[in-house]
Amino acid sequence: MIAFRDRLAAEQQRKQSCVVVGLDPRFEKLPEEFQRLRPGEAVAAFNRAIIDAVEDLCVAVKPQLAFYELYGAEGFQALRETVDYARDKGLLTLLDAKRGDMGSTAEAYAQAFLHPQGPFDADALTVNAYLGSDGVRPFLDLAEHHGKGVFVLVKTSNPSSGELQDLETDRGQVFEVVARMVDAWNCEAVVGGTWPEQAARARELMPRATILVPGYGAQGATAEDTKPSFRADGSGAIVNSSRGIIHATWPDGPRHAALTMRDELRAVTGTLG
Amino acid sequence: MIAFRDRLAAEQQRKQSCVVVGLDPRFEKLPEEFQRLRPGEAVAAFNRAIIDAVEDLCVAVKPQLAFYELYGAEGFQALRETVDYARDKGLLTLLDAKRGDMGSTAEAYAQAFLHPQGPFDADALTVNAYLGSDGVRPFLDLAEHHGKGVFVLVKTSNPSSGELQDLETDRGQVFEVVARMVDAWNCEAVVGGTWPEQAARARELMPRATILVPGYGAQGATAEDTKPSFRADGSGAIVNSSRGIIHATWPDGPRHAALTMRDELRAVTGTLG
Repeated sequence: MIAFRDRLAAEQQRKQSCVVVGLDPRFEKLPEEFQRLRPGEAVAAFNRAIIDAVEDLCVAVKPQLAFYELYGAEGFQALRETVDYARDKGLLTLLDAKRGDMGSTAEAYAQAFLHPQGPFDADALTVNAYLGSDGVRPFLDLAEHHGKGVFVLVKTSNPSSGELQDLETDRGQVFEVVARMVDAWNCEAVVGGTWPEQAARARELMPRATILVPGYGAQGATAEDTKPSFRADGSGAIVNSSRGIIHATWPDGPRHAALTMRDELRAVTGTLG
Repeated sequence: MIAFRDRLAAEQQRKQSCVVVGLDPRFEKLPEEFQRLRPGEAVAAFNRAIIDAVEDLCVAVKPQLAFYELYGAEGFQALRETVDYARDKGLLTLLDAKRGDMGSTAEAYAQAFLHPQGPFDADALTVNAYLGSDGVRPFLDLAEHHGKGVFVLVKTSNPSSGELQDLETDRGQVFEVVARMVDAWNCEAVVGGTWPEQAARARELMPRATILVPGYGAQGATAEDTKPSFRADGSGAIVNSSRGIIHATWPDGPRHAALTMRDELRAVTGTLG
């Protein structure tokens, strides 16, 4: 079995791309042709169309779970179909769930989203570490056993992320403490592209981690802003855009936006050797 | 429209109970008669049986979302049925989701779980504030508008909760900073019954909040341990037990366990005036 981190790195090199396409579809914002369907079916069909348009340009898709839970059971069915479709197209699937709970509950979340015999079987999950290591360990254990990935929130891209994450503690800022935990856990991390300075520090504290960088595009981070999350050789990070791609003018906008993003990031990272 | 906090307090007084029953059913642990059904149906049927057994003894039920997501779309259907059934029986429904995300994503979670026209329409949701105020605000706004509640994780009951939550910052420990935020947001809080000392401090910092106390029973907190989460008059807190009730010996164990718990807590809080 190949570790998640290595699978992802191999795909980055093969496609010379570090683009992740965020699948955060809102029924009422979908092109008209999809709005004739029920919400769950519309979301699933739209995602298939997006995946078809961008599959050669990105390494992974990142469904944001809120936009599936919003449609109840049929939204969850759409999520399952999306994960399966993306996998069939050779894309890695990162579920943006930001789950975090303890013991048997964390285990149940891990089984739900990462277990090969579970309802979803995605490749990776985002996790919130506010509960500490016993809230993260069940995710790590299951992920390691099945070659899956765990991305722990270190520094999020939103404007108020500093309220807790930048607090000065007697062991550095809170996000630095979490970054050190991530390094000890030897898992992956989330660091917002909107905070280049903190990203440089996080990169330093987590030399082994793959960093998922949200915030590109609609949230304001430029390709240049994402640079500190990469290693000097251009490896070690993937960059997500959601609205900037999926809500670009239908039907050609999404592919065009993904292509532009890939090339802008390639200019920053150089060719991946 | 009556505020969530007032609805809950009125039920506590009416029933002279601060018991919350956690609905965290695992298919493979259900009594045999339920295991003949499909997992989703089994969970829904089991929950109905538990609700029938304890409805007069508790003020609310708290489904833990991991145990529904584990069964995919049919698990989500079971969650919906459970929420509806509990409401019909006059119980408040607290979804233990520990969600936390930003902007439009937080809004989507709030709509999914708390909106009267959403798929679930529960009474309250647990929320993780690691992202700061713009990750919590959308929950607060929707909740206020519809008389729903938001319980922010302040100090969780698990053994490693101190790794982040007890860090000393230049503004007090991390959980104290979050407690002050909760007070400013005027919402509710989660403080584990396993940490009586921190609970006393949290109670002091959040005089208005209703505190949801997990950790009673299976996790080791006694009725006495929960005392610091209550105000001097016995108001202001509710106490959850999950496994200790739902996995008590079928069929009479759950009711008996809920009754014992109610009376043990009553001995600590006194009669609610």
